[in-house]
Amino acid sequence: MAMLKKFRNLKSVENTGFGTNSNNTGGRFLNKDGKPNAIKRGVALADRYSWYHTMLQMPRGKFLLLLLCIYIFINLLFAGIYYLIGIDHLAGVNTGSSWKNFTEVFFFSAQTFTTVGYGRISPVGFMASAVSTFEAFLGLLSFAIATGLFYGRFARPQIHLRFSKNALISPYKGETALMFRMSPFKNNSLSEAEVQLTLAISTEENGKVVDKFFNLPLEIAKINILAMSWTIVHHINEKSPLYGFTKEDFANTDLELMAFIKAFDDVYSNSVIGRTSYHASEIVYGAKFRLMYHPSEDKRSTILDLDKLNVFDHVPLPASEAAAIAN
Amino acid sequence: MAMLKKFRNLKSVENTGFGTNSNNTGGRFLNKDGKPNAIKRGVALADRYSWYHTMLQMPRGKFLLLLLCIYIFINLLFAGIYYLIGIDHLAGVNTGSSWKNFTEVFFFSAQTFTTVGYGRISPVGFMASAVSTFEAFLGLLSFAIATGLFYGRFARPQIHLRFSKNALISPYKGETALMFRMSPFKNNSLSEAEVQLTLAISTEENGKVVDKFFNLPLEIAKINILAMSWTIVHHINEKSPLYGFTKEDFANTDLELMAFIKAFDDVYSNSVIGRTSYHASEIVYGAKFRLMYHPSEDKRSTILDLDKLNVFDHVPLPASEAAAIAN
Amino acid sequence: MAMLKKFRNLKSVENTGFGTNSNNTGGRFLNKDGKPNAIKRGVALADRYSWYHTMLQMPRGKFLLLLLCIYIFINLLFAGIYYLIGIDHLAGVNTGSSWKNFTEVFFFSAQTFTTVGYGRISPVGFMASAVSTFEAFLGLLSFAIATGLFYGRFARPQIHLRFSKNALISPYKGETALMFRMSPFKNNSLSEAEVQLTLAISTEENGKVVDKFFNLPLEIAKINILAMSWTIVHHINEKSPLYGFTKEDFANTDLELMAFIKAFDDVYSNSVIGRTSYHASEIVYGAKFRLMYHPSEDKRSTILDLDKLNVFDHVPLPASEAAAIAN
Amino acid sequence: MAMLKKFRNLKSVENTGFGTNSNNTGGRFLNKDGKPNAIKRGVALADRYSWYHTMLQMPRGKFLLLLLCIYIFINLLFAGIYYLIGIDHLAGVNTGSSWKNFTEVFFFSAQTFTTVGYGRISPVGFMASAVSTFEAFLGLLSFAIATGLFYGRFARPQIHLRFSKNALISPYKGETALMFRMSPFKNNSLSEAEVQLTLAISTEENGKVVDKFFNLPLEIAKINILAMSWTIVHHINEKSPLYGFTKEDFANTDLELMAFIKAFDDVYSNSVIGRTSYHASEIVYGAKFRLMYHPSEDKRSTILDLDKLNVFDHVPLPASEAAAIAN
Repeated sequence: MAMLKKFRNLKSVENTGFGTNSNNTGGRFLNKDGKPNAIKRGVALADRYSWYHTMLQMPRGKFLLLLLCIYIFINLLFAGIYYLIGIDHLAGVNTGSSWKNFTEVFFFSAQTFTTVGYGRISPVGFMASAVSTFEAFLGLLSFAIATGLFYGRFARPQIHLRFSKNALISPYKGETALMFRMSPFKNNSLSEAEVQLTLAISTEENGKVVDKFFNLPLEIAKINILAMSWTIVHHINEKSPLYGFTKEDFANTDLELMAFIKAFDDVYSNSVIGRTSYHASEIVYGAKFRLMYHPSEDKRSTILDLDKLNVFDHVPLPASEAAAIAN
Repeated sequence: MAMLKKFRNLKSVENTGFGTNSNNTGGRFLNKDGKPNAIKRGVALADRYSWYHTMLQMPRGKFLLLLLCIYIFINLLFAGIYYLIGIDHLAGVNTGSSWKNFTEVFFFSAQTFTTVGYGRISPVGFMASAVSTFEAFLGLLSFAIATGLFYGRFARPQIHLRFSKNALISPYKGETALMFRMSPFKNNSLSEAEVQLTLAISTEENGKVVDKFFNLPLEIAKINILAMSWTIVHHINEKSPLYGFTKEDFANTDLELMAFIKAFDDVYSNSVIGRTSYHASEIVYGAKFRLMYHPSEDKRSTILDLDKLNVFDHVPLPASEAAAIAN
Repeated sequence: MAMLKKFRNLKSVENTGFGTNSNNTGGRFLNKDGKPNAIKRGVALADRYSWYHTMLQMPRGKFLLLLLCIYIFINLLFAGIYYLIGIDHLAGVNTGSSWKNFTEVFFFSAQTFTTVGYGRISPVGFMASAVSTFEAFLGLLSFAIATGLFYGRFARPQIHLRFSKNALISPYKGETALMFRMSPFKNNSLSEAEVQLTLAISTEENGKVVDKFFNLPLEIAKINILAMSWTIVHHINEKSPLYGFTKEDFANTDLELMAFIKAFDDVYSNSVIGRTSYHASEIVYGAKFRLMYHPSEDKRSTILDLDKLNVFDHVPLPASEAAAIAN
Repeated sequence: MAMLKKFRNLKSVENTGFGTNSNNTGGRFLNKDGKPNAIKRGVALADRYSWYHTMLQMPRGKFLLLLLCIYIFINLLFAGIYYLIGIDHLAGVNTGSSWKNFTEVFFFSAQTFTTVGYGRISPVGFMASAVSTFEAFLGLLSFAIATGLFYGRFARPQIHLRFSKNALISPYKGETALMFRMSPFKNNSLSEAEVQLTLAISTEENGKVVDKFFNLPLEIAKINILAMSWTIVHHINEKSPLYGFTKEDFANTDLELMAFIKAFDDVYSNSVIGRTSYHASEIVYGAKFRLMYHPSEDKRSTILDLDKLNVFDHVPLPASEAAAIAN
């Protein structure tokens, strides 16, 4: 535990937004997808969720299925109402069994809600006409809302960026460095990309386990265009809280790296942000990323191999460092 | 009034946007919901309100009701026009009493406006056809506008954040501090949150009551992720305009704290802002917030109890301070 | 021309975006509404205008009229096509005179374009069916575009701010100051408002008239909340390029003040900008704005009288200054 | 190769986002339109493209054609389904040859999908009714998506800016400068425009060709309003990596200028960015841009001749510089 004492001299930061005792038993602060690992309680469900945020973040298939279910449900409801009013208030219905009658009013309801209005079946009585007048109104509003949701879903600025699954401890300038990398994977381009890296580490203080946070300085923290892959490098030198960490220390210490990136997406013309986290178990000690781009065959472009994002080779690390601390 | 003289030595700020004599008699500058407590006069109503801003800020139920009323009103209007043109210009009308005739043209109007167009009733004469041509056009434009309003309403970036109802004067590092806290309560997350705190205080100057404003420095004014609750702390030390205030001073002085927060919402991908204000009567002297988060049962997440946002305990404060000033 | 020599010693700025000889004969750089007073030539009309920008900036009435005209035009076009195909391809047409036939196909076209589709008239032949299939598609796309335009129009962040018509030279701290003011006039509120003021002045240099630009420092250039009126004050002291200007100098010199404001609108949750310009002829020498807000009757709010925005009183100015320069 | 040695003393930058060996054989880093010259591989096509980004960047004609094709395809599909169900489930069909029957169900499908629903043909059986109920739902959702796409396309903030095709080496203050210019060409105005210029140059280091990047300082890097043309000037003095470059050096060296501009568009109320690149072959040695604006006939406005954006005259350059280096 030599190195734990050591980094106590370094200034920890308090502006991460996480408390020092919020999560001191091995859980993550950030999930892998960058969302805070916190559960909210004490407010009503309706207050706790923004239905719009929920609809926006729902997977595509689920979202479409939900819309279909709502459509069927509303039509069943109105079919019920028309059925209660009586099918004699609807002209053109092919009467028959109760089931047949119900399907006819159901289809009439759908033709009204979607404003198709073939007119084979049409309302004649006052009640049926009034209900269908309201249903058509509701139908159009529903599709107005659906339009907004669709637009909200696909126009929502998202960072189309992938992070390497692992962070590596690699050789760097005769010492070591912590590295991970990221790459945009769609036909977008990101400008003025900026990364912040924070280390969360559980440590014992006066017999109590508390969490400490450190900002890790990066070799390059901001780039003009994020067109290719970008390898984030934190040089593990004397000023790093990770200085002197051995393979065993990485394995035994409860630490987490939280990465935050902000960039400007050209197509959305909007700032987008991304977050990810590397738990101690996702840090590979003694490894090096393989280069993931190379010139094209005609030597006029660059090829970016996105499937190599997390490809690395195990390499020995300079041994002097741990020894240096031991002395 | 010892402390009032005292803070005259501190530099007050003039860039709050509020005048020194705009509001010198006990009213608030900001309402609790963060809107300026000002009434605009001297412009026509239509100019003073942006109908779009009004529609966006209207409660949901009221908004839907308004749309329904507009729908009914427009149909009544067109029903009147068709009725005046004569129901013989409409084919398929089941004629009868005047009331029956009117309901038929009303429903025809609704079927046209919503573009359902069953066709049981259809226009045959030139006038009725021309009016229905225009009504269908108007109908589609109306739903186009409604679509825009719905989207504008739910896509409008809002800060889903709650503030504690009270601000507290709590013990802090052997002295005291002014504290209040806030917490996001929906499934959103806020990045790069930043708070500014301004004190407005009424004071007598040359026999005239004027308002003075002070920026209150905060222990942490910016955090990376606002995922948990965040307690804002203004240390009441020698540099604070509140230094030496006793319980009675807080009760008798006409002061107001104005808090302003700006953050980046991940789902909206947009900056959002929030404001609130604490009037002297909402500041509790000698109290401390109770911790509102704790590890989950399985120790892998953090639980945030949102109903504890304003829960505090009364505690004694260090007594030395007021005495220090008296000397 | 003493003062013209004088301000030659002051550093002029070159980053206004206007050239030094672009406009040296009395015209404005900015129009009163803040748009640059420049005419673009040498590109095709279609390239020079963004139709979307044009549609967004068009007055409301004109915009609605344009939509109606497009609607009528498209229906006339399709009516012509159906007429050429032959009205025998449409079932249910009440034939008669050519005019009557044409009106029938016109109304059929409208019923198709708006997707009302009563069905009294319906296509039977292949050609008429194919054309109506295309027309209904076109109709829906047109209303999709109209929806986008409506939303674009009312969701477009605009600064709801008025500027005083005149800028004044007022007494200020024993010397003089250039002042103008602005006020939000709708139910919006602006945060973090920031103003830049640039002076453009035509001056003779080596016998050639050139334009010089100066940034005018402001007493308060940024405020937290722009809830009330805001008076912009440029103190005319020794460091000001306007120092020593007499009433005659203001009248005879070709100068222009360009004001630029940027703020964050809470409802749009977006940055908004505004610009205006004061030509020499709009600067009133020796006048003072009248206070435009006062406490409400119940002393709990502030009343803002927007119709007083440009109300000022003529006042004498301290005389010493011009004399000081003469010496 | 004297000058290549020379600029090795200057500090190169590493935060461009391009690697030092990504593209060392004469290709560009940025294409002329500002998009990175990189090809992504190793992810599935569906993952590599954001369909929304693709739809937004597609030329207008192609986009409309695609929508029409989708419309026809969906109708063919549903026509097939109705045909399989049997045309006896549809009332009002004019039966005849298979082809005639198929066109009838195709047009019925279109009338359902667009919700025109004339009603001449209408579904009677359960299966046909159920399918048409689903088709009308799908139709409305499709037009909801189309609405979103249209809005997304025209509301997408784009920088309406043109760059001169060439960059020039012009005489400047007795030495030389690298210049290029840009001008907005639509009825928009850009505020707070900011330019960054980066030089990429291939050089030999230890027998290996590597790319080096330099930020080129600009005479004016930020302007208030980009209303007129803006000429970007990089003074080639001792601190410039281009200092001492002769005409032959420009011709023989593999260099590329990457320009990045960020501004705020008033109508979109949004930040917009633009990029372009000048390859060595697009740099004209010894030339000067012709002035592209002049006062209007009535001397009250400025005329901007956009067709002169790339008009320049060949001029001799001061000869002393190359000589100075040779010594």
